[in-house]
Amino acid sequence: MSDGRLLEALFAPKRIALVGASDRPGSLGALLAANLASFPGEVLPVRAGESLRDLGVPVDLAVVAVPAAAAPQVAADAAAAGVTAMIVLSGGFAESGPDGALLQEEMLRAAAPEGGSRVRVVGPNCFGVQNCDLPLNASIARGTPVGGGGISVVSQSGAYGMAVHDLAHEEHVRFAKVCAPGNTSDVSVAELLEALGEDPATTTVCMLLESVADGRELMATARAVAARVPVFVLKTGRSEAGARAATSHTAALASSAAVWRGALHQAGLVEVRSGQELLDAARAVDGQPLPAGDRVAIITNSGGTGVELADLLADEGLAVPALSPALQERVRALLPAYASPVNPVDVTTAWSLFPTIYPALVDLLARSGEVDAVVAVLLQRSATDPATVQGVAAAVQALRADGVAVPVHVCWVAPRSADDLARELQGAGVPVLPWPPRAARALGLARRAARARDRLARGSAAPRTAPGSTPGPDVDVTDPEAAARLLRGFGVEVVASVECRTAEEAEQAASFPAVVKVGRAAHRTELDGVRLGLSDRAEVRAAAAELLLRSPTVLVSPQLAGVEVAVGAVRDPDFGPVVMVGAGGIWVETLDDTAFALAPLGLDDARELVAGLRIHAVLAGGRGQEPADLEALARLLVAAGDALVGLPDVAALDLNPVLVSAQAAVAVDWKLLPGGSSARVRDQW
Amino acid sequence: MSDGRLLEALFAPKRIALVGASDRPGSLGALLAANLASFPGEVLPVRAGESLRDLGVPVDLAVVAVPAAAAPQVAADAAAAGVTAMIVLSGGFAESGPDGALLQEEMLRAAAPEGGSRVRVVGPNCFGVQNCDLPLNASIARGTPVGGGGISVVSQSGAYGMAVHDLAHEEHVRFAKVCAPGNTSDVSVAELLEALGEDPATTTVCMLLESVADGRELMATARAVAARVPVFVLKTGRSEAGARAATSHTAALASSAAVWRGALHQAGLVEVRSGQELLDAARAVDGQPLPAGDRVAIITNSGGTGVELADLLADEGLAVPALSPALQERVRALLPAYASPVNPVDVTTAWSLFPTIYPALVDLLARSGEVDAVVAVLLQRSATDPATVQGVAAAVQALRADGVAVPVHVCWVAPRSADDLARELQGAGVPVLPWPPRAARALGLARRAARARDRLARGSAAPRTAPGSTPGPDVDVTDPEAAARLLRGFGVEVVASVECRTAEEAEQAASFPAVVKVGRAAHRTELDGVRLGLSDRAEVRAAAAELLLRSPTVLVSPQLAGVEVAVGAVRDPDFGPVVMVGAGGIWVETLDDTAFALAPLGLDDARELVAGLRIHAVLAGGRGQEPADLEALARLLVAAGDALVGLPDVAALDLNPVLVSAQAAVAVDWKLLPGGSSARVRDQW
Repeated sequence: MSDGRLLEALFAPKRIALVGASDRPGSLGALLAANLASFPGEVLPVRAGESLRDLGVPVDLAVVAVPAAAAPQVAADAAAAGVTAMIVLSGGFAESGPDGALLQEEMLRAAAPEGGSRVRVVGPNCFGVQNCDLPLNASIARGTPVGGGGISVVSQSGAYGMAVHDLAHEEHVRFAKVCAPGNTSDVSVAELLEALGEDPATTTVCMLLESVADGRELMATARAVAARVPVFVLKTGRSEAGARAATSHTAALASSAAVWRGALHQAGLVEVRSGQELLDAARAVDGQPLPAGDRVAIITNSGGTGVELADLLADEGLAVPALSPALQERVRALLPAYASPVNPVDVTTAWSLFPTIYPALVDLLARSGEVDAVVAVLLQRSATDPATVQGVAAAVQALRADGVAVPVHVCWVAPRSADDLARELQGAGVPVLPWPPRAARALGLARRAARARDRLARGSAAPRTAPGSTPGPDVDVTDPEAAARLLRGFGVEVVASVECRTAEEAEQAASFPAVVKVGRAAHRTELDGVRLGLSDRAEVRAAAAELLLRSPTVLVSPQLAGVEVAVGAVRDPDFGPVVMVGAGGIWVETLDDTAFALAPLGLDDARELVAGLRIHAVLAGGRGQEPADLEALARLLVAAGDALVGLPDVAALDLNPVLVSAQAAVAVDWKLLPGGSSARVRDQW
Repeated sequence: MSDGRLLEALFAPKRIALVGASDRPGSLGALLAANLASFPGEVLPVRAGESLRDLGVPVDLAVVAVPAAAAPQVAADAAAAGVTAMIVLSGGFAESGPDGALLQEEMLRAAAPEGGSRVRVVGPNCFGVQNCDLPLNASIARGTPVGGGGISVVSQSGAYGMAVHDLAHEEHVRFAKVCAPGNTSDVSVAELLEALGEDPATTTVCMLLESVADGRELMATARAVAARVPVFVLKTGRSEAGARAATSHTAALASSAAVWRGALHQAGLVEVRSGQELLDAARAVDGQPLPAGDRVAIITNSGGTGVELADLLADEGLAVPALSPALQERVRALLPAYASPVNPVDVTTAWSLFPTIYPALVDLLARSGEVDAVVAVLLQRSATDPATVQGVAAAVQALRADGVAVPVHVCWVAPRSADDLARELQGAGVPVLPWPPRAARALGLARRAARARDRLARGSAAPRTAPGSTPGPDVDVTDPEAAARLLRGFGVEVVASVECRTAEEAEQAASFPAVVKVGRAAHRTELDGVRLGLSDRAEVRAAAAELLLRSPTVLVSPQLAGVEVAVGAVRDPDFGPVVMVGAGGIWVETLDDTAFALAPLGLDDARELVAGLRIHAVLAGGRGQEPADLEALARLLVAAGDALVGLPDVAALDLNPVLVSAQAAVAVDWKLLPGGSSARVRDQW
């Protein structure tokens, strides 16, 4: 449960104090005074030389615009006056160097005096907070926010706070709550996210993350929110340069983009690649149902643009199926002769008919049962005609009123002179996405949100508790036989092998075909430390003798068949134990085909991980290959995660290859790394 | 060489006749009369009831706006009057059904009377032609085109003609020539492209293709144009639904998207995914040099947006490297304390310094020699400040004047109130790309254009002539031994094998380890018709005896080692002989890892094909694997193409797998398909 008192103070305060109020044009204090003018409650100015202590009435929220050096005193005054929360918009704190960092710490200490009441702090150095419906504009974006929508935003980048404000004013995209907490000295992203998850006005959440202190906690919160509303996430710092820049101040070790991708997916969130996609996705789902399937109908007055959009929707994994003959007949009845009723439905240049054709087609296709979404391309002549645009808006509103579960989006290509019509359409609740790439991507993201929702509803990402186990203090996890015993204890199937010190022992231990390998090595193939396909005792003896020249022991095991898969588990700096699966053997680095999930993971998580790999098609069989035992592989992934969770002194485990056959998934090479070597292991993946 | 007289008539006529001139508001004739009003030459109206024959002066170009039914008479009049070319903008021709198709044919016949002078026809049902510099607006886009730029467009979609016109007016993107020939009844896309290639005003070409009659001819033309200027291409109909819609009227068999991709790449063109990308790429390279390498510097006033942009540039294969310590020192001298000089260079919120910092950084970084392109993020406060925007424009113009070969692009995120500043910047020749995804993609495409230019300059895509050869009429290409002989004749290395009719023959023929397989079969692995790893005569005999129960012969060959690669060649409906290479064996369908080139192909083409595959990393060695003989594989690809070109009665050849080892690339299974089965073969890939 979130801190209800904090949230009420932030988003629905009764009385606000503006600390640092000023009449000086261009000052932060003057900007905030103007922004708070539309607030329906009371706003008390606290000017230079005045104090929160002297107000004489209780204040829920202090909006602070004083220079950094004055902030600790303001915090102390706020605590003394019983203020619930303060939003510090000023800069000059930790982002500006060591001196600022000291001021930030001092301010936080003053806000939580020993034995006194604590003031929660949003910021400093932040965009601030908006409750667009109230309206409350405690942010640096000039003007009054436009409410009435369900999109809420929590952003670690202030730039997108500004962009959101512009979008609302310029394109009638409607927001509920916007918060960008800047340096996040106290109130965390997870707390704000939790608040939005409980906010009835919020029906869609956008999160823009740069770096977080506790990824695992944030994902747990996000998962709960995603169970109620779609959550779209941009995590920046995916690239090397991006990560370097994102962490330049903190020098924190960043989690890899692949781990983030896995964590977001597992929590039921939808990952996007840019801030624009984030806001487009929200625009697409605000007020429209999520598409329940992959089938899309396109209505267009440009054949070429219809084709282009169909291509781009295919890139999103969506389909533009031919309509049934019966439905084509009904479509044809609305169209001029020789217009195409197949899908894309091309209404051609019958301009005078657009005001009737477009709304009628939107209605017919959305109610047809043959598609899961409708995209109306409004391009030039159709977009510049008020009757057509208004007709589409009315048709969509009728569908929503009737509870038809098929969303309608508009792909817009028109001169700026038609911007007012686009705004009108968007204001009526129809998502207007400019140009085909954004339209296709937004619908693709809406569909991903539906899939994530369905997955959470199945409970497949439900957290589970791993069985605990700790090896005795005398167990050497770098000993291959000891490691195999530990892994088997968690349910990881490991090939039977015998550690031998002489060629004669090896010969005795072998069953054929046999494998002989050096006892302990990082990458055995690289070291040429593996001898495969040994078919008799002489071959085993010769191989063992050779390998024993450079290794004190060899391992002898039966040679198994199957598709090579790599499995690993490691302690991630942000997320703790995570499991990795990917193409194995020589393919591991070649195919860039790996997927991650947080451990402990459920069997459904494990199945999803495998299903998302390129090599899934190989594992699933085809061209005469028998299907591999995917369930056994899923169980092995669960067990690998359990092992890392249950062995706190192990930094990582590496099972490569695991051979997956029609009968089993067996690790034929395995390694446990003692604590402290996480980073090194991760670099190998 | 293009038809100079035609081109002069289309793009630089001295006297124009407007046939179907009208005063009726809203009519096509009235629109064209208004559009032609800015034409600096003579425009003669030909109204209803009048004829081109009666003008009494020579006319270069007839712009035709009459109903389709009247078009054949207009064409006859034009031929009689000696008109060089006509642009038919009216619809109602082949696009509207059989009656219109007849009118179109009739018009074409009338335009080329036997023994008379021929009128070349652009259209019908088209957007038309613009020469923005003249200006000549013989198109349906209202107004006077804005010239002064080097971007020329040839589009099979009229919708993008309109969009181009809007972009020029609304965002100051500058075009040279725009043509959209609609039904392309006579003057072809290739002719128009050739004209643009010879036009000194054209420095960048955008092509939007839906379907073409002769892809091979178009690619030959495009290659010549690309040797002079960057050519960007959108080919729509990549997806199944897109292809269905694009070919709905013609029922033509479409070439696959993968073949198009290979053909475009081989011709030195840059493929884009949408019309917006097409125009963004042109905007990025018009007036700016192409980036000579992958290193990009980012200047930003939003840390978060800098990180986002770095991520998106990485997605494009570009790098945002840390600057050298010496350069960081120089950058730091320009910045406020604690701003980041690393790259992205984050100027923080030092608003008052923006007008000096931004231009100085643009200049410093572009001249540093450490990066190949500079992207300045102008976001909110930096974008809304005229002095900053104008300072950036001046800095870029100074770089261009000094011949500095590093392009500067602007990534723009600002409220609409700053649109005028964006236009000013774009008008000054600085590419303004809104929001990070478009900025990153445009720079990525500019870089691809540079790579294509470099490749053409190396001559690597130079067409070559394949050696000819024809099997005697008695050769059965479905006979494996005959096929092997034919393939070897073209230089394809094929494993030595012996066709045997009895198990005893097979036993005699074997060397070990041996392979025995059924004599003729489509997919031997699927049919379980291959026995691998036979280590002695008894095993060979048993395997042969078993397989001879269901095949009249078996093939016996030595078992080779190597990475499995699939190679094929097929006659494509648009391009003729094409060669395919991809991951082989069980991976062929799994990895979606195939690449195509037109045959005959050069050795450099072949090397590039292989280098672009995912499995290239496997072939190149690593993790203890010896590198495969990539040159032998390239030679085999060239030979496979030569074989299909040289064997006109063969529809396709299939070499799968080819085993590529450190020593050789050898086809161990091979098949020639007799003529007529192209489509079937292609469907298997």
